[in-house]
Amino acid sequence: MPEQPSTSSPNRFERRRAATRQALIAAARQILAERADGDGEVSIQEIAERADVGFGSFYNHFSSKGELFDAAVGQALEEYGTALDTVAGGIEDPAETFAASVRLTIAMVESHPEIMRILRRSGLGHIHSDSGLAPRALRDIEKAAASGRFSVADPQVALAAVGGALLGLIDLRLRHPERTASDAGEQMAELVLRMLGMAVEDAREIARRPLPATPA
Amino acid sequence: MPEQPSTSSPNRFERRRAATRQALIAAARQILAERADGDGEVSIQEIAERADVGFGSFYNHFSSKGELFDAAVGQALEEYGTALDTVAGGIEDPAETFAASVRLTIAMVESHPEIMRILRRSGLGHIHSDSGLAPRALRDIEKAAASGRFSVADPQVALAAVGGALLGLIDLRLRHPERTASDAGEQMAELVLRMLGMAVEDAREIARRPLPATPA
Repeated sequence: MPEQPSTSSPNRFERRRAATRQALIAAARQILAERADGDGEVSIQEIAERADVGFGSFYNHFSSKGELFDAAVGQALEEYGTALDTVAGGIEDPAETFAASVRLTIAMVESHPEIMRILRRSGLGHIHSDSGLAPRALRDIEKAAASGRFSVADPQVALAAVGGALLGLIDLRLRHPERTASDAGEQMAELVLRMLGMAVEDAREIARRPLPATPA
Repeated sequence: MPEQPSTSSPNRFERRRAATRQALIAAARQILAERADGDGEVSIQEIAERADVGFGSFYNHFSSKGELFDAAVGQALEEYGTALDTVAGGIEDPAETFAASVRLTIAMVESHPEIMRILRRSGLGHIHSDSGLAPRALRDIEKAAASGRFSVADPQVALAAVGGALLGLIDLRLRHPERTASDAGEQMAELVLRMLGMAVEDAREIARRPLPATPA
């Protein structure tokens, strides 16, 4: 990177500003992941210390703690949505894509509990968000409905139902890992495919097809 | 505790104690209903004033604000569950009972938004509770599965999915009433019946049968 410290490029300030913002978001993500029961008790001072930035910097970037935590959750979901698209996007059958996304999401309760705790915590509020998982799920529902694989009257109602159902199972597995079978992800994919209009036998078969390889 | 001040009945102390506890719970329910975005900022002092009881009384009944709010939510859900049993319990077909319960719950978003805000707020935590709606829904799922109307591998997974789906739609209607059609309750009942294993045509028909009369 051709940095010219003597004359100080106009981008330098912007880069530092972006780095500070990202440090605050990263600190908020750590805190959200650690505190399953909420962020109510953490102070802006603590967040700034965790981010290794000055206390005063906080308000250059966010007007409140809530705004920071919203940004943190949104960023985690957007990253996860991009990862899901990479893994499940290559599948041709839109019903199978949907089932794979559900199964991969449920599997993340074990592999990435910190992101799943974030998702559970703020979940309902993000079901109809304009970024993250919501627009991707809506896109997949509409695509599968258009091709006749799904049968859905109102895609918004279906999205609310699918998103809520998924959150319900994520919560159950985080809360009582012993209460659900090891194939809970496949069961949930099956339930969701049925809900979206597929016959019981088709849903069962599609929900248990081999998953695409996950990139490390 | 052998308290017998002059003649006053031994039950009097207990009655006053119960009345104080109930006043605190009623105040918490009002507060929960008014503040859709949480109870984080209300003080115990404010709660006591609202309940018209002395500040010191609070700790005779609850060890923390959280404990009080849990009791408040639990009481609202138990009342609602009892009301649902009265209305929907007389239906013979367990699938129809389940569909009616879903529709009546969604209708309450308009008729009793304060209870529905409570449900949304604490929702996921109550899906597997031992009181309120959860044990009733589990009972109905198991009954319908036993009679062959539903097809469910793991009732806990199904309960998580149904409870979450319902919360998703309640949240959508509270947040964006304009985004869902007037028959959203029937649509949701249909989606839930499908999810529990019913064919698309059966689910549609059952979800649109006349509802039992609601007691005033």
